[in-house]
Amino acid sequence: MKTTLDCIPCLLRGALESVRLASPHPRTHERIMRELLRVLGETSLEYPPPFLSQSLHRRLRILTGVEDPYRAAKDEQNRLALRFLDDMRDGIDAAADPLITAVRLAIAGNIIDLGVKTGIENKDIQAALIRAAEEPITGDIEDFRTAVGEARSILYLADNAGEIVFDRLLVERLSPARVTLAVRGKPVINDATIVDARDVGLHSLVEVIENGSDAPGTILADCRPEFVQRFHAADLVLAKGQGNFETLSQARRDVFFLFHVKCPVIADHVGLPTGTNLLRHHRG
Amino acid sequence: MKTTLDCIPCLLRGALESVRLASPHPRTHERIMRELLRVLGETSLEYPPPFLSQSLHRRLRILTGVEDPYRAAKDEQNRLALRFLDDMRDGIDAAADPLITAVRLAIAGNIIDLGVKTGIENKDIQAALIRAAEEPITGDIEDFRTAVGEARSILYLADNAGEIVFDRLLVERLSPARVTLAVRGKPVINDATIVDARDVGLHSLVEVIENGSDAPGTILADCRPEFVQRFHAADLVLAKGQGNFETLSQARRDVFFLFHVKCPVIADHVGLPTGTNLLRHHRG
Repeated sequence: MKTTLDCIPCLLRGALESVRLASPHPRTHERIMRELLRVLGETSLEYPPPFLSQSLHRRLRILTGVEDPYRAAKDEQNRLALRFLDDMRDGIDAAADPLITAVRLAIAGNIIDLGVKTGIENKDIQAALIRAAEEPITGDIEDFRTAVGEARSILYLADNAGEIVFDRLLVERLSPARVTLAVRGKPVINDATIVDARDVGLHSLVEVIENGSDAPGTILADCRPEFVQRFHAADLVLAKGQGNFETLSQARRDVFFLFHVKCPVIADHVGLPTGTNLLRHHRG
Repeated sequence: MKTTLDCIPCLLRGALESVRLASPHPRTHERIMRELLRVLGETSLEYPPPFLSQSLHRRLRILTGVEDPYRAAKDEQNRLALRFLDDMRDGIDAAADPLITAVRLAIAGNIIDLGVKTGIENKDIQAALIRAAEEPITGDIEDFRTAVGEARSILYLADNAGEIVFDRLLVERLSPARVTLAVRGKPVINDATIVDARDVGLHSLVEVIENGSDAPGTILADCRPEFVQRFHAADLVLAKGQGNFETLSQARRDVFFLFHVKCPVIADHVGLPTGTNLLRHHRG
């Protein structure tokens, strides 16, 4: 999907949050925001929002010299989410439909997105978990169940740190032997990297690969050839989060997208209200 | 107060709304937003947010050729609010403390601000009115009561269309003979102009003056000398809305500010949470 003009204020708000994490100096914040306004004024909107975000965050890293401003926040996210791992696993094991319960929890993990809202706390996570057990999922549930039943290989595209703990539970339920988990190739916002996959123990459960890109989504043209090959070869691709949806919504292969519809632009694009938990089977 | 970097995404969102009201053409929207990004990247943040907003909206009028993109929306706001005028007046007359009830309703009018949120409906207004009768006001209530008791002349600075109907009720309660109502000198966003004052019948109740400026606030240096003279000469100045607060919070005279704290930047500035209904006595 293309970037809309509505994405611009939102991208700037996200960039401002990053700038403030990367530097304590108000003058630096202002200088960089002015630079980003200039860059945004000249950037094409033909590409998906994560393309612009990638460009802004590259600029930000150059200007601040800070490679991973969200590292501490990501550690905290993982730490917080890991507290609930065993309880959540027990909940899945005890559920009437463990696969879909795991899917529900993986969406719950997508709700607690530091890239959209900061200051996440224990009670927010607990509240999200309780809601997750109750909220409906819209979309192609039975298609997904069938595809999971048939697939010999599954490529799981992770989204954010913290959320990746919830992904681990779904990975466990998908039978780890056939699953490969893909993370971003470099830090960008609070997206999960190889560090997060290790921190939450996914490396000892499945093969973890990096996609080679620093976009907060999956821009295939920007990914390593090895990743792109795996993307096309997998029997099933499960892509978490809005960023992966925005960048792969026109992919030339089947993809199951799993995300919480967080903003009006995406709501308009998928034809469903914000707040929807969506499992969508895209046919490539 | 100065503009913060957090204001920039918000100003852009408001500008985008205006651009879309002024033109149906997506290419025009994009061209103008790029231009506004460039302008914002070069504008000083030393002045209050309405200064930047004024600059953006001037640019917008030049680029679109549309003088008053919110005219239809303002008419609709006035029309909607006028439906409730008699009921609200009855409510004030029957109240134990009519002055403060009128103040509460004037704040309710400030909540239903098209500049912040579009798509206001009958039920939103009714809900705001019901909440208004219940919600506390924070601030210098007794100071205000005393000042109203003593003032021979009151200058009432209006804020938005629609809201101006609620202002009329407070004006009625203040004894109209001593009140002058001031509106913006030219259309900007959904701020009330002389047209709105007439539409809601204020011109037959009090003297209505224009401040001579097209800023969505009161930038004294940009106002007509006659207005500035009246501003300094009045026994009591009552300024409605965040825009007037942002531009007059360092005024060299006493001002009573009456507004709903709508955004985190203002909340931080006044040291109160968003959602607060505030009547603040500024001592100049």
